[in-house]
Amino acid sequence: MLKKTNRISLVDQVVSQMENLIENGHWSIGDKVPPEMELMEEFGVSRNTLREAIHALVHAGLLETKQGSGTIVRSSSSLEAAMHRYIEKSDLLETLEVRLALEKEAAQLAAKRRSEEDINKLHASIKQCQDAAERGAMEDFIKADITFHKNMVRAANNKLLQDLYEHMTDPLYSSIRDIMLMDNQFDYNKEIHSELLDAIRHQDIDGATKYVDAYINEFKKRL
Amino acid sequence: MLKKTNRISLVDQVVSQMENLIENGHWSIGDKVPPEMELMEEFGVSRNTLREAIHALVHAGLLETKQGSGTIVRSSSSLEAAMHRYIEKSDLLETLEVRLALEKEAAQLAAKRRSEEDINKLHASIKQCQDAAERGAMEDFIKADITFHKNMVRAANNKLLQDLYEHMTDPLYSSIRDIMLMDNQFDYNKEIHSELLDAIRHQDIDGATKYVDAYINEFKKRL
Repeated sequence: MLKKTNRISLVDQVVSQMENLIENGHWSIGDKVPPEMELMEEFGVSRNTLREAIHALVHAGLLETKQGSGTIVRSSSSLEAAMHRYIEKSDLLETLEVRLALEKEAAQLAAKRRSEEDINKLHASIKQCQDAAERGAMEDFIKADITFHKNMVRAANNKLLQDLYEHMTDPLYSSIRDIMLMDNQFDYNKEIHSELLDAIRHQDIDGATKYVDAYINEFKKRL
Repeated sequence: MLKKTNRISLVDQVVSQMENLIENGHWSIGDKVPPEMELMEEFGVSRNTLREAIHALVHAGLLETKQGSGTIVRSSSSLEAAMHRYIEKSDLLETLEVRLALEKEAAQLAAKRRSEEDINKLHASIKQCQDAAERGAMEDFIKADITFHKNMVRAANNKLLQDLYEHMTDPLYSSIRDIMLMDNQFDYNKEIHSELLDAIRHQDIDGATKYVDAYINEFKKRL
């Protein structure tokens, strides 16, 4: 039961509590939030207060109210929601430039900080890329490739870097896919991934930089 | 007068209109928003609808309601507000790492894209740094130095890069200041700024990278 000072600050408190439930993953993207009566009881607030808090989160882009199907979680944080809105209005090339800058920094930090688990995950992503390439499964390949890059960024062990990278990657998915599909021939050049992974494993910062530069230049040429 | 479909979407429309007024700079940071009666008339909505829209913008961090002094503009965009909230909760080192990565990318892009006006602004910032150093005016020097770096990032001509950089720099201001004040001796090494500017002017991407690496390493050593 929340402290009832006045209505606006009560709304604020309910907003904060719901934001925490979303940011901590207690409510995940796509989840339906519990029914009004349950939330009114949980937070100890009136229907009006609850509705106003939900509206605030809808405006912030964290929740979405769908006619007939209730309220669902749309973004995992207000930063994610704000970045998605911003990136939708942005130039594709600008977003890719920033994303590649983050990726390059990530490779260098990953070479310093990677854990055994990071290396294993990167290995697994390369394996998935290879499997998909062998089956000629382009969509699976693209997903595995994006996972490889996300795992590399995670190995940098910098939460802000990771969040910005992922918040940029998701809304770019269809563009990244289009760029990758521009390749007529579908031959997976496993070497760049493997050599980058080797550089990260051996904490070879210059090597990591070199391989990231190589595929970034490759990618930029196709734009 | 807005189309009145239903109350939630009316609130949405008022929120969007106010967001636009803020993002386009029609309402600036620190400005008091017009009185309720005026806004109700401007948007053609009831007091309840207007208040709900204002609450939504308060939760998003764009507006701030101060007891007795009305509602003022706090952030210029929801991305800025979300980044400030995120960075307040983040690790200082993580934020600086990301900021430096953006700065490095910016130097390379600036070397490609700088306009005559960019070069003039960078020149002016170096002059301001030098003047402040000669007067021994540390606070002025720090401001001029930050302006030099912001101007360099602007010369990269990538709005997303610039916005992320500035949204990171502002909440870090006091930390950057502390780090710069750690220098016992106050001697402005004009050469790094001047050589970086020369590299950018001559579109020497490798040179720009080299000088940015030099001062980033210098800065990291002090952390």
